[in-house]
Amino acid sequence: MLRSKLLSLVTRSGSSRLMSTGTKLTSVEVNDKTGIATLTMNRPPVNGLNLELLQDLKASIDEIEGNKSRGLILTSSSPTIFSAGLDILEMYKPDKDRIRAFWSQLQDTWLALYGSSVPTAAAINGHSPAGGCLLATSCEYRVMLPKFTIGLNETQLGIVAPKWFMSAFLSVLPQREAERALNQGRMFSTEEALKVGLIDETANSKEEAIEKCAAFIGTFAKVNPLARSLTKQQFRAADLQQLENERKEDLEKFLFFVNQPAVQKGLGIYLEGLKKKAKKQ
Amino acid sequence: MLRSKLLSLVTRSGSSRLMSTGTKLTSVEVNDKTGIATLTMNRPPVNGLNLELLQDLKASIDEIEGNKSRGLILTSSSPTIFSAGLDILEMYKPDKDRIRAFWSQLQDTWLALYGSSVPTAAAINGHSPAGGCLLATSCEYRVMLPKFTIGLNETQLGIVAPKWFMSAFLSVLPQREAERALNQGRMFSTEEALKVGLIDETANSKEEAIEKCAAFIGTFAKVNPLARSLTKQQFRAADLQQLENERKEDLEKFLFFVNQPAVQKGLGIYLEGLKKKAKKQ
Amino acid sequence: MLRSKLLSLVTRSGSSRLMSTGTKLTSVEVNDKTGIATLTMNRPPVNGLNLELLQDLKASIDEIEGNKSRGLILTSSSPTIFSAGLDILEMYKPDKDRIRAFWSQLQDTWLALYGSSVPTAAAINGHSPAGGCLLATSCEYRVMLPKFTIGLNETQLGIVAPKWFMSAFLSVLPQREAERALNQGRMFSTEEALKVGLIDETANSKEEAIEKCAAFIGTFAKVNPLARSLTKQQFRAADLQQLENERKEDLEKFLFFVNQPAVQKGLGIYLEGLKKKAKKQ
Repeated sequence: MLRSKLLSLVTRSGSSRLMSTGTKLTSVEVNDKTGIATLTMNRPPVNGLNLELLQDLKASIDEIEGNKSRGLILTSSSPTIFSAGLDILEMYKPDKDRIRAFWSQLQDTWLALYGSSVPTAAAINGHSPAGGCLLATSCEYRVMLPKFTIGLNETQLGIVAPKWFMSAFLSVLPQREAERALNQGRMFSTEEALKVGLIDETANSKEEAIEKCAAFIGTFAKVNPLARSLTKQQFRAADLQQLENERKEDLEKFLFFVNQPAVQKGLGIYLEGLKKKAKKQ
Repeated sequence: MLRSKLLSLVTRSGSSRLMSTGTKLTSVEVNDKTGIATLTMNRPPVNGLNLELLQDLKASIDEIEGNKSRGLILTSSSPTIFSAGLDILEMYKPDKDRIRAFWSQLQDTWLALYGSSVPTAAAINGHSPAGGCLLATSCEYRVMLPKFTIGLNETQLGIVAPKWFMSAFLSVLPQREAERALNQGRMFSTEEALKVGLIDETANSKEEAIEKCAAFIGTFAKVNPLARSLTKQQFRAADLQQLENERKEDLEKFLFFVNQPAVQKGLGIYLEGLKKKAKKQ
Repeated sequence: MLRSKLLSLVTRSGSSRLMSTGTKLTSVEVNDKTGIATLTMNRPPVNGLNLELLQDLKASIDEIEGNKSRGLILTSSSPTIFSAGLDILEMYKPDKDRIRAFWSQLQDTWLALYGSSVPTAAAINGHSPAGGCLLATSCEYRVMLPKFTIGLNETQLGIVAPKWFMSAFLSVLPQREAERALNQGRMFSTEEALKVGLIDETANSKEEAIEKCAAFIGTFAKVNPLARSLTKQQFRAADLQQLENERKEDLEKFLFFVNQPAVQKGLGIYLEGLKKKAKKQ
């Protein structure tokens, strides 16, 4: 459905074309006029970040870096969910090898997105909790549609956002706001997110959100791309380096925590709740 | 007097009880309904932070952590002073052993408060200079009564706030505001403190302040306590670690500075002024 | 011309005198009443920061620290340019030894200004791009005249602001604002700079700007100078230490970057543009 929508867009406007079909769970579309790539997450129903979606996201980011796009706009094919965050099925009664691969891939994908050489913006066209918020705050700019929510709500789920989730969060929020929201596992409405600086603009449709993201990326039109990317990477170096240095400890910490019986029990109850909810609908 | 007031409160409302009489200079009262502990500093006339009050504070924090309270509200038994900060008598013509114990205890008490596993809030019911401001900014939330002042005014007294006082200050204020206020030794009025973010709310009475603190702590009602405390401690880890790593150097630096003849002279003049003021009243 | 202006000021008001003629490219005037030194950059036409101006700035800062001035106000003898930043002639087809001396001197001058023991303020009486903005943000307070611009516009020139330029920038701007402006190479108008916190006040004339800077420095009148300078230096220690630790790498990084053919080409084109512009005027 996404494909046909994109193709119809191409046919209609003639101003964009589908560049990549390289991954199953993401699509990359580069606008011919602007040179900006839109990276769409497409793992229905909620863009749960499982191993494969994280792999595809990383591959698409690499592709966009490689094809000399002027920028990257991250969005979702779902009309109501940007990304629901980490796929709980990866963490509930996990396979020993797969869960290691999963977390390592999350680290890799984040390092690629947060440290990306091209300008990045998120068109947040749906709810964006936990890992969804991580992806959004790892971009340089955020435009969000009304009536959705965004935040790092890990504590509400009985888990702890890793240090590097906090780094991305702190790159947009003041320390006092960031700490309180993290401790509360607070989800911000679009209006609240705008007020506090968690997002930069609102838009009334996905198209408008993408336009506004493109306008932000357009502010770099006359900036030397190499100088720009070195500047961004130097600015973000401490955050990136911290994870680079602590990858193994970060993985072990996650594995230890996720394997706690209390955490497994909590995830089980949460999944049960999701199933019941799904049946009702 | 505090005791009778608390007991009368218990009698009247039946909703709270006095949990602890373990320390001389602090009292801990846990509200039966909310499970929130109020920790009251009670060293008249100004809650000067001497060795014993710091020991009692630490013991009370430990007790609150141990008794599964839902949160900690720090306040004062004085109607005009939250805490006047470090007791100058500990620093003026000090005993060699006692001043070491004093500073180490200050470090311990701060590590316990700033890193506390339970949600913390300060009901600032009086002036809160220097060490008083440190205690307040080490909590996660601050409600203050009107017509009082708060700030790190060390430079006004000719001394230097240690690095970790600055960490707590920076956890609530933007860097530009924090540095300027530190350099000026600025005391903020309640209104100014609210405006700049040094406090979060105002209240017209101690009771209202405690209620507002309890409401803040209530925002964690549905949050997993373990996930919450790990999140908070991870967020504050760099600040806490910095002092842990530099405890000895921090102690020696303090001792070197406080033993400077110019500093001793300054403290002497300050104490003389306090005595004269006391006589007049 | 500057000299005669200063002398006429002395004659007129009797309240200030010219203290220093020690350097060619800067002048230092200490106000008798306030004890505050005004340090004026005087390298027409644009106060381009070449080796000699940086040496003179450092010597003047040292002099002001040494002569017990109550504070330092940095300003420019030009009516339209505070400082145009690093002199591009130092970087274009550079002499191997001189460019090393140039960058080392820039490091030294910044360490002296950012870590200065006396209160510092910038009376920004003209445009202040790149290195000019570095000097301004390394002071503790900024007052700017209308209709000028300020910012770290390095990326616009195809170069990268070093990490320590970013430190000074981050000492006044929130992280989100700082990163975006750095990546964009954004120049802020006086009004924009005020709004975002990049400057603290505006003034309608150089005299008024200097008065407002003096008023800021006057807020320290009753503060112990030693306690104040130790507080400031401790607050800025991490930033200062970072450059101290990385001086050599920072120099090599700069040399590597500036000697890239693409950068040399860019600087050449830029200089050509300046020449044409100069001819027209």
